[in-house]
Amino acid sequence: MKIALAQINTIIGDLEGNTKKIKEFINKAKEKNADIVVFPEMTITGYPTLDLWFKKSLIKKNKEKLNEIADYSIGIYSIIGFEDEKDNKLFNAAAVVKDGKILFIQHKSLLPTYDVFDEARYFKPAESIGIFKIKGKKIGIQICEDLWDDDYKIKVTKTQKELGAEFIINISASPFYAGKEYVRDNLLRKRALENKIPIVYCNLIGAADDIVFDGRSLVCNENGDIVFRGKPFVEDIYFIETNIFENKHIPLITIKEDEIFNALVLGTRDYVRKIGFNKICIGLSGGIDSALTASIAVEALGKENVLGVLMPSKFSSDHSINDAKLLAENLGINYIIMPIEPIIEENRKLYNHVFGDYKNKVTDENLQARERGKILMQISNDSGALVLSTGNKTELAVGYCTIYGDMCGGLSVISDVDKLEVYELAKYYNKIKGKEIIPKGSLEKAPSAELSQGQKDEDNLPIYKILVPIVNNYIELNLTIDELINLGYDRNLVERIIKMVDKAEYKRRQAAPGIKITQKAFGIGRKFPIINKFEEGR
Amino acid sequence: MKIALAQINTIIGDLEGNTKKIKEFINKAKEKNADIVVFPEMTITGYPTLDLWFKKSLIKKNKEKLNEIADYSIGIYSIIGFEDEKDNKLFNAAAVVKDGKILFIQHKSLLPTYDVFDEARYFKPAESIGIFKIKGKKIGIQICEDLWDDDYKIKVTKTQKELGAEFIINISASPFYAGKEYVRDNLLRKRALENKIPIVYCNLIGAADDIVFDGRSLVCNENGDIVFRGKPFVEDIYFIETNIFENKHIPLITIKEDEIFNALVLGTRDYVRKIGFNKICIGLSGGIDSALTASIAVEALGKENVLGVLMPSKFSSDHSINDAKLLAENLGINYIIMPIEPIIEENRKLYNHVFGDYKNKVTDENLQARERGKILMQISNDSGALVLSTGNKTELAVGYCTIYGDMCGGLSVISDVDKLEVYELAKYYNKIKGKEIIPKGSLEKAPSAELSQGQKDEDNLPIYKILVPIVNNYIELNLTIDELINLGYDRNLVERIIKMVDKAEYKRRQAAPGIKITQKAFGIGRKFPIINKFEEGR
Repeated sequence: MKIALAQINTIIGDLEGNTKKIKEFINKAKEKNADIVVFPEMTITGYPTLDLWFKKSLIKKNKEKLNEIADYSIGIYSIIGFEDEKDNKLFNAAAVVKDGKILFIQHKSLLPTYDVFDEARYFKPAESIGIFKIKGKKIGIQICEDLWDDDYKIKVTKTQKELGAEFIINISASPFYAGKEYVRDNLLRKRALENKIPIVYCNLIGAADDIVFDGRSLVCNENGDIVFRGKPFVEDIYFIETNIFENKHIPLITIKEDEIFNALVLGTRDYVRKIGFNKICIGLSGGIDSALTASIAVEALGKENVLGVLMPSKFSSDHSINDAKLLAENLGINYIIMPIEPIIEENRKLYNHVFGDYKNKVTDENLQARERGKILMQISNDSGALVLSTGNKTELAVGYCTIYGDMCGGLSVISDVDKLEVYELAKYYNKIKGKEIIPKGSLEKAPSAELSQGQKDEDNLPIYKILVPIVNNYIELNLTIDELINLGYDRNLVERIIKMVDKAEYKRRQAAPGIKITQKAFGIGRKFPIINKFEEGR
Repeated sequence: MKIALAQINTIIGDLEGNTKKIKEFINKAKEKNADIVVFPEMTITGYPTLDLWFKKSLIKKNKEKLNEIADYSIGIYSIIGFEDEKDNKLFNAAAVVKDGKILFIQHKSLLPTYDVFDEARYFKPAESIGIFKIKGKKIGIQICEDLWDDDYKIKVTKTQKELGAEFIINISASPFYAGKEYVRDNLLRKRALENKIPIVYCNLIGAADDIVFDGRSLVCNENGDIVFRGKPFVEDIYFIETNIFENKHIPLITIKEDEIFNALVLGTRDYVRKIGFNKICIGLSGGIDSALTASIAVEALGKENVLGVLMPSKFSSDHSINDAKLLAENLGINYIIMPIEPIIEENRKLYNHVFGDYKNKVTDENLQARERGKILMQISNDSGALVLSTGNKTELAVGYCTIYGDMCGGLSVISDVDKLEVYELAKYYNKIKGKEIIPKGSLEKAPSAELSQGQKDEDNLPIYKILVPIVNNYIELNLTIDELINLGYDRNLVERIIKMVDKAEYKRRQAAPGIKITQKAFGIGRKFPIINKFEEGR
C-alpha cells in the first residue's frame, strides 16, 4: 500500500485556496499511484481558525468544499481535516473521501486547552472512536492531540489498536518551538511502542499569526523506530510504502540555531505574504537586534523587498550609523536616512513651553522611540511596506522597549528570541553566509538604545548573561523566586527582574504578534492580567 | 438563619489585600450576628486571574490565606472562593470555614470556555457534588457556571436538590453587559423553579482588565420569585434571613443608559486605580467621543484628576476647538493646548525631501493622529497620568482609527460603545447633570476626524444609522451576509462593511483593553486571526 503524505501550507480562512491546493496534491499523489493521500489537521479551514470556526457561513462552505474534494478524489482515498457540525455541536474532524463519497468521519477526542491551544472553546470531544478499512488494512485515523494522551483518561491509539487497527494515521497541526522535534519524536516512539502499532504522521507547515508549523512529517514503526522523516519548514509530498515499517531507525540530528533561524525566516515570509504584503521596512539602529531582523527579512522576502530606515538623533553614535549603513550594504538592501532631531526638537520646545522642564528622564527617551515608530508608519502608510519591529524577548520581558515606539510594527520577528540567542543567531548567519554580513561592530559593541548620552543597556538592566537565564526560567518554566534563587541567583536581583517582567504586561498586551520559537512565547499562549497585584515571594 | 452576602470588589493577585477585605467583611457580618457570610468566586485570588493560576507560589499562598481566614472566622461560617490543588490538578473551589477549620470544599463542576471565559485552560471539573449542613439546614454550595447548566449534561442544582439540599448558595463572578441583569434574573428564576429550591446568589463587583462585574447579588425563592436584589456596581454587604424566601417577587427595572454609564464609570475608576494610577490625560478634539470619555473620567476619578489636551492642527475647525474648551470648562477640568502643526510640518518636510509627494492621502491623516498619541504619551511619561483613549466600537470595528495614534492609551473607555449609543450616553449625561455639560456643538455637528480639509466621517463611512446596526449584528450576533441582507440592508454595503471589519483585525490585536458592555466586545472574548482569507458570502 502506498501512502502519500501531503505536508502542505494552508492559509487560515482561505477555503478556496486550500481546496485548490488539496486538489493539486491529490493529483501529485495520483501521478505516483498512491492509494491514500493524507493532509494535515483542519486542511480546509486552516489552523487555528479561532472564532472563524463559529461562523455558520464558514462551516457551510467547509462542508461544500469537503464534498468537492470527495468528487475530485477519483480512485484515491483522501484523508482531509475539516470542521464537522452535528446536532449543533462542532467537531475537529478527519474525513476519508473517495469517488464522490465521504466514506468515514473520525472526530477528535482530545482537545488541547494549554499554551496556544483553545479547542474547548470551539469543539466537543468525539463521541466514538473507530477504525476504517482501506484495501483490507484496518487503519486508526486520529487528529493531532489524540496522540498526546499522557494527561488524558481517553487513550485513542490504544482504543484503535484494540479495535484491530494495523497502523495509525495521525493528521496534525503541531506548532514549532526549538526542541519540539525531539519531543514529537519521543512521543511517537513511545506511543507506537506501547501499543505495538506503526504511526504515520502528517504535520502542517507554515505561519499562523504567532505560530509556525514546521511540517517534519514522520513514520514510526511498531518498535518505536522512526523510519521516515519529512523535511522541516517546507511544503512537500512524501510517498511511503507500508513495507517501510520494516526499516531501521533514522536518528534525529538538528542544530538549534539552524532550526530557529529557519523558523523565523518561514514565519516572516509566510506571515507577510499571507496578510497581503510583499515589501517591508525596518528601522536600522546599528544594533544587533535590527541587524538580525533585517537579515531574516532579506532571507524571507528578498533584498529588493526590504527597506532599511536609519533615524539618527543627537544621541546616535557615528559607529552605530556606520554599522547600520554597512549592514544595509552587506545585505544589498536600499536604505534611507531620516534624522529625527529637528522633529523632536519641536516636541521638546512645545512641551517645555507648556510644562517646563522634563521631570522624568525617560520621557525624552520614549519620545525619540515614538518619533521613529511614527516615521516608519508614515513610510508604511505611503508605500504599502509592512513595518517589522525588532525587539527581542528579553527586552520585551522586562519592558525595556517603548510602546508605540520601537514596538510599532505588523510583526515582531524576534520577540521570542532572547538577547543571548540573538547574538548566536547573528554569528550563525555570518557563518552560513561565509562572510561578515552583520558587522563586527554590531556584534561586539556594548548594547545600547542610544536614547541618551552614553547610555548602555547594562546601566539600566543587569548584564544579559544573568538577566537572560532568569527571565527565561521565569517565563518559560514558570519558576518561583525561591526556585530561581536555588539556581544560584541573588534574591534582590531576582525580585527586581520579576517585578520588571510583571509590570510590563500592559506593553505586551498591545504588542505586535511575534514568532513563537520557545515553549512559552509572549502572545496568545501566555495570558496574564494587566491588573495584577501578585508579588512573587512576598 | 441569617446569611450575609459580601458583594466585594477583589483585586487580581492581591491575596494580601483581598484577605484583609474578607476579614473586614467577616467582622461586619459578625457585628450583625450573621450565621454565614458568603463571598464571590475566587475571593482570595481575584477573578479571572488567568495564567497566575498556574503559579505554584500563588496556589500555595492562596491556601495559606484560606487557613488564615478559617482561623479568623470565629463563630461564623465563611464561604470563600479559592483555588484548590489536589493530585496535581487545579480546581475552582468554594470552602466553608469556621473556627480555624476548613469544614467542606466544593469544586466547580461546569467550566465555561466561551466568550471571555477560559477555565478549561486551568481547571478540572469537580469529581463529586455534595451538600453541607449548617445549623440543621442542608445547603448546596456551588460556583458560578454550576447554575448555568442548560448546555451541560451535569446538572449541579438538580443533583444537590436530590441530595437533600434545602437551598443553594452560589458564589459567582458573572461579568456585566447591558441586559445581562435580565438574563441572570431569568436564569435564577428558571433554575429555582425547575428544582423547587431557593437560590442565594453572591456576585463579584469591580473591574478586571476588559471586564466589569456588576455585583447585583440576588435571592430567589423556590417559586422563582426574586425576593432580594443587591445593588449594582457597588461593594456592599446584605443580610438575609431565610424566611425572606416567603416574600413576594421584586420586579427588575433598569434603564439601559444608566446601566452602561455606571459600568463605564466603575470600569474606568477601578481599572485606573487598580493598576496604580490616580490621574489621567485625554485628548479633547471637540467631538462627541472624547467628550463622553472625559465625562466618564470626571465621574470616575474627580475633575481634579483629569487633564484635557487640545492638539489642534490646521484642519481643526474653530468650533471644534471651542467645543473642546467649553467641555473642559463645563467639567471643571484643567486643559492645555498643544498645537501639532509645527511638529508635523517638520515630518512632512523630511518625508517629502526623501520620498517626494505623498502617494496616499491617509499617510498625512495618520501622521497627525500619531503625533497626538505621541504628545499624550509624552505627558503621560512625564506626569504619571494614564492616557485614556477615546475611540468608539463602531470606529474600532471598521478600522476608522489610527494604530499608535488615537488608539494610544492604557484603557479604551468606550471601545465597546457603538457610535449611536455614544450619542445616547452623552445626552443621558447632560440629563442627569441637569445642564449641558457636553456642548450642543459636539452633540449636533456632523462627526469628523478633522484630519483633512472639510473631512466628515460620512465621506468615508456609511451613515452611522446604517453602519452601526450592521456592525453590531455582525460582531455581536455573528450574522452572515445573507442574514444581514434579510434584515433589509443592501448587499454591496453589507459586503463592504464586513470586509472593513475583517481587515481591521490587526489594529484591534494591538488595541488597549476596553470595558465590555455588550454581549461581544473586542478584546479577550473575541479571538480572530490576523491572517484570515475567509470572505463572507463568497
